[in-house]
Amino acid sequence: MTPFLDQNFLLQSTTAQDLYHHHAATQPIIDYHCHLDPKLVAEDHRFSSITELWLGGDHYKWRAMRTNGVDERFITGDASDWEKFQAWAATVPYCFRNPLYHWTHLELKTAFGIDKRLNPDTAREIYDTCNDRLQHDLRFSARGLMRHYNVEVVCTTDDPVDDLRYHSAYAEEIVNRKTSNCQMTKMLPAWRPDKAMAVENADAWRAYVTKLGNVADIDIRTFSDFIDALQRRHDFFHARGCRLSDHGLEEFYSEPYSDTEIERIFGQLINGGSADAEEVRKFKSAMLYIFAVQDYASGWVQQYHYGAMRNNNSRMFSSIGPDTGYDSIGQWQTANSMSRFLDLLDSEGHLAKTILYNLNPADNEMVATMLGNFQDGSVAGKIQWGSGWWFLDQKDGMERQLNALSVLGLLSRFVGMLTDSRSFLSYPRHEYFRRVLCNLIGNDVEQGLIPFIGYEKQRVRQMVEDISYNNAKHYFNVDCKM
Amino acid sequence: MTPFLDQNFLLQSTTAQDLYHHHAATQPIIDYHCHLDPKLVAEDHRFSSITELWLGGDHYKWRAMRTNGVDERFITGDASDWEKFQAWAATVPYCFRNPLYHWTHLELKTAFGIDKRLNPDTAREIYDTCNDRLQHDLRFSARGLMRHYNVEVVCTTDDPVDDLRYHSAYAEEIVNRKTSNCQMTKMLPAWRPDKAMAVENADAWRAYVTKLGNVADIDIRTFSDFIDALQRRHDFFHARGCRLSDHGLEEFYSEPYSDTEIERIFGQLINGGSADAEEVRKFKSAMLYIFAVQDYASGWVQQYHYGAMRNNNSRMFSSIGPDTGYDSIGQWQTANSMSRFLDLLDSEGHLAKTILYNLNPADNEMVATMLGNFQDGSVAGKIQWGSGWWFLDQKDGMERQLNALSVLGLLSRFVGMLTDSRSFLSYPRHEYFRRVLCNLIGNDVEQGLIPFIGYEKQRVRQMVEDISYNNAKHYFNVDCKM
Amino acid sequence: MTPFLDQNFLLQSTTAQDLYHHHAATQPIIDYHCHLDPKLVAEDHRFSSITELWLGGDHYKWRAMRTNGVDERFITGDASDWEKFQAWAATVPYCFRNPLYHWTHLELKTAFGIDKRLNPDTAREIYDTCNDRLQHDLRFSARGLMRHYNVEVVCTTDDPVDDLRYHSAYAEEIVNRKTSNCQMTKMLPAWRPDKAMAVENADAWRAYVTKLGNVADIDIRTFSDFIDALQRRHDFFHARGCRLSDHGLEEFYSEPYSDTEIERIFGQLINGGSADAEEVRKFKSAMLYIFAVQDYASGWVQQYHYGAMRNNNSRMFSSIGPDTGYDSIGQWQTANSMSRFLDLLDSEGHLAKTILYNLNPADNEMVATMLGNFQDGSVAGKIQWGSGWWFLDQKDGMERQLNALSVLGLLSRFVGMLTDSRSFLSYPRHEYFRRVLCNLIGNDVEQGLIPFIGYEKQRVRQMVEDISYNNAKHYFNVDCKM
Repeated sequence: MTPFLDQNFLLQSTTAQDLYHHHAATQPIIDYHCHLDPKLVAEDHRFSSITELWLGGDHYKWRAMRTNGVDERFITGDASDWEKFQAWAATVPYCFRNPLYHWTHLELKTAFGIDKRLNPDTAREIYDTCNDRLQHDLRFSARGLMRHYNVEVVCTTDDPVDDLRYHSAYAEEIVNRKTSNCQMTKMLPAWRPDKAMAVENADAWRAYVTKLGNVADIDIRTFSDFIDALQRRHDFFHARGCRLSDHGLEEFYSEPYSDTEIERIFGQLINGGSADAEEVRKFKSAMLYIFAVQDYASGWVQQYHYGAMRNNNSRMFSSIGPDTGYDSIGQWQTANSMSRFLDLLDSEGHLAKTILYNLNPADNEMVATMLGNFQDGSVAGKIQWGSGWWFLDQKDGMERQLNALSVLGLLSRFVGMLTDSRSFLSYPRHEYFRRVLCNLIGNDVEQGLIPFIGYEKQRVRQMVEDISYNNAKHYFNVDCKM
Repeated sequence: MTPFLDQNFLLQSTTAQDLYHHHAATQPIIDYHCHLDPKLVAEDHRFSSITELWLGGDHYKWRAMRTNGVDERFITGDASDWEKFQAWAATVPYCFRNPLYHWTHLELKTAFGIDKRLNPDTAREIYDTCNDRLQHDLRFSARGLMRHYNVEVVCTTDDPVDDLRYHSAYAEEIVNRKTSNCQMTKMLPAWRPDKAMAVENADAWRAYVTKLGNVADIDIRTFSDFIDALQRRHDFFHARGCRLSDHGLEEFYSEPYSDTEIERIFGQLINGGSADAEEVRKFKSAMLYIFAVQDYASGWVQQYHYGAMRNNNSRMFSSIGPDTGYDSIGQWQTANSMSRFLDLLDSEGHLAKTILYNLNPADNEMVATMLGNFQDGSVAGKIQWGSGWWFLDQKDGMERQLNALSVLGLLSRFVGMLTDSRSFLSYPRHEYFRRVLCNLIGNDVEQGLIPFIGYEKQRVRQMVEDISYNNAKHYFNVDCKM
Repeated sequence: MTPFLDQNFLLQSTTAQDLYHHHAATQPIIDYHCHLDPKLVAEDHRFSSITELWLGGDHYKWRAMRTNGVDERFITGDASDWEKFQAWAATVPYCFRNPLYHWTHLELKTAFGIDKRLNPDTAREIYDTCNDRLQHDLRFSARGLMRHYNVEVVCTTDDPVDDLRYHSAYAEEIVNRKTSNCQMTKMLPAWRPDKAMAVENADAWRAYVTKLGNVADIDIRTFSDFIDALQRRHDFFHARGCRLSDHGLEEFYSEPYSDTEIERIFGQLINGGSADAEEVRKFKSAMLYIFAVQDYASGWVQQYHYGAMRNNNSRMFSSIGPDTGYDSIGQWQTANSMSRFLDLLDSEGHLAKTILYNLNPADNEMVATMLGNFQDGSVAGKIQWGSGWWFLDQKDGMERQLNALSVLGLLSRFVGMLTDSRSFLSYPRHEYFRRVLCNLIGNDVEQGLIPFIGYEKQRVRQMVEDISYNNAKHYFNVDCKM
């Protein structure tokens, strides 16, 4: 029996162990998509307690606690930090086989050096130990944790109207300190313009357009003004190092439309009206296209996260808002529109490097084969299939994505893992991913499915290093020395 | 090479063997959803032959025989019992890797003590041995088999118009015998009102409404009368111990509708008219909602079995009717309507404990994540994902359900297995499920994915006992001593 | 560590090894569906280079090269044979875990006896060795390769307007040589009438109808003429040994239609008009039905390959045409129409032996259970689920098809593998399939899931031989001695 979470955790063969320890674990982290708060980095935030860090915003844990019969007061309510931690500690032993069980203990071990299992008996000791370190040890600040996990680059997720002040301040601090040798994690913004196309809620959209006009210093009256304002913000982001966009979609939109139609719909909306279902789809189709053209022109990478069915619980949405654990995996048949969307861009010569993330694993093979339709030989792995996202960001989800990518595309060219997280403690997910990756490859080698001698042995090792680090570095063209 | 069907069948590790033999096998069975005929229990039916027991109504076996090229005469036709058994025995060796192969031999072994493989050479001997026991050994009556398999509770599946006479008679017998110490299996009815909403066939529906009016002693003229009659039957079922409803659906229905519309559609139907496709969907949406509210008010658990595409073969439907092996796995995208349906109930405070069963495994992850949207912390595991159903009730189907539930929810809170069967010989499916469960957990322990020492060792063992028995007992609040 | 590609490649247990070497490897090949060019067989084509053989038309390899960043000039452009081979050799080491890696080396080993890994260092030597053999060794002609791989029968894929001259010439040669002892591979045509129903492109369809009228010697003016012409060609194919049809569909079509409607749509089209979306669906529904009735009347097997989303890249379609690596896995919910289509045929007594191939593995369980609805006991395995097709024709895809078929149907009755290939070097895919099959069965035996003693041991071995060869031979009723 292998002990829980020992150094060879998830690594079932000696080949896997060799690949992981010597070729994966040693690579720095490029976390090219996450939801960290840049303010916490700029201010090098100190966390008041493990409750803040773990339970302040982690809706994965909230869902598990609700499933375990915990009252909302101990989840998002007014219970004390200790009470909330206690409720979580009581839930943890019910999480066997759930990724939360592994993540929790990987984080305790790799951040705090705690090699105990969290349960009601150990809760107090672990709580006190973590809090003591968080409050008194400089290595547990926001930046300290990023350094600890060898994070070279992080890309946050930002709205076009954001002034990026924390990115600027932090970048300036790096320049002033002259630490161009990567001692400090590079933090870059990423462009997430979802609100600019969210015309299904016309009031919120109009308020957003006003805000956009203000920051872009454009009086937005026409669709053309609107696009100009977005382009100005795009340029602003580019100047602050942004090289990456991201879009959260239910499905892809590629309805036929004319410019006149879009101008009409825009006029209708900006003047206090609303758009019907067909107009919404046309408008979104136009915006997705224009966003993509802007990204291509700037040499950015574009990301699409599609397939989440959000805010299913209207009672809790009214009470505690979005992103609180009431989203789930949706069902949309978007293959045709995804294809049309990418084809239009490709045929007009505007197709940027693209990463597609699906949330429903039933779409895995469809997406994995979509890539090949638009690989044009200009860049290795130009069209990428994103690593297991959200609910799929766990051993089974990762393995299915890696296996389908392997048989239907080229695993070797994969840009690998990202945390997509709001937490400074999520970096062990890169370790988790690398262990899963090395284990799959190691098993194949052991079974004689991959040669492991001479030229091919070097190639296998290089592949592991590339997927862990080099592929992302080249694909995103980001560099902590940049 | 492990011998076929030895005591460690399906248990690949010593941990799995320990978990199964000491923590799973020893638990009684709560079979909370099945299709047993209550008459056979009330009358303690004796089976005339293994052909009656095995081939009288088991459409799984019928499908296999047709696939194997067996003429219908030997399946549902007028061939003799021995001829039919012979045809089945000749098919069995063509069933390697099909669950029928395992079930057949588990049933022979655990019920009859026969440890031989069924094939043309052994057919006569096995036939004679089984028949001899069925006819002459009291332990092989309907009740004898339930006792033999340590079945504490069974919930049958009953129509609202059923008078539940066999449930009453059997319950009375238990009272009279004063065997409150669980020596006799408790049998409870369950409420399956599918026919009350099957308005797509207006004639059959009207006949049903007439029958319902009669048993409820209400002259049904308006929609309100209709609902009153159903509520009266609901109360009647409740008084006979029913705590569970079940619905067979193609997909979920949650169309917007007004009370006036539903009353109009009802009037149209009751007066000899029919409903168009949209009206049918509205009516079903109303009925599903009302059924759910009734269940909530009575503190019942509601079950939804969705996704079967039934009666595909119209030639055989005309000839031998429904449930004869011509159903299969359908494709419906019902995530949005399922979410709206549950959300409406939750937002109005009417959401009962709910079990969702999908038939198409492509929906697994969608369903597994739907649960979390409506877990409200009031009861651990309030919203459940039903165990692999029908075609999925086999090793691969169970493993996929258990694995997806594990990574996307809390396996620990799962209410576990049910037979969903028409046969008194199907109880070994609980054994099968428990072996599969223990094997998965055992493998994880062996690989160091679950800790197995101290507090956590006890928790793993408790989890196995809970999923095998305790969770169902608490969730359904049924008790053989009740 | 098992060496790469040794004699026990893919065979993880001694049982698997025994089954493969003694019961699978020894069976001849019936390749009942492929896209070989009959001209190359009739003329016993000699290949000028390994580039022609490997890279002349293999869009699997082209996709991999584009993904690897190779410029189109080295793929379908004007680069030299050696340059193209070099580009492929440089891509191969990036194909670990992709079936191309296995196929490439299986082909090098089993055809050329080359047991080296292809990479930039070995490229020249391998290129020269292969070309030398292709050009100078008689055993490497088209027929030589078929003989080498023990191919008894191949069924090509042919258009109804094809004159089958190469089939005739080759058949005549066999007769003249009096080699009825199977020394020469039997080559039969198969009927693929896709173009006859492709009315969505009215111009191309009209041109096709003209061609059809010419070869059938019928002046096609009415729908009835059209069907007569098709029937005449069907008879012509039948006379040349055709016993198999094939259809490439996005989804199934079973719209309700009347004969009058179809005649009207036909008239409209033949007279220079076009059909709207609904008319196209009706027309296709009519044609699918008529094709099926014709096949049934002639005692043929009908095949349906559905679910491919083709020609996604319009830029490359304009430049290099169809079948060049820009197709992918689509999403259609076709369960209902597939069921209606098969049911109509069954209820009218016209349902031929049928093989269903799905491209999206999310449909696997739906298709696997569809079979059972129409198995009528007349022939074992009358309705078949086709082996993993196109993107699914690899270890993972095969295993998922075999596993789902096993638990939801009868693996024993499976007609097994086909290449579906354009290449004379693809026969090792039969070896690959057989190894995967034996490995799954071997693992089950080792784990005690299948008995392997006495009667059952013989049955397991027979099952392997049947799936490898006998089932196809009986199902298609083809015979090299025929």
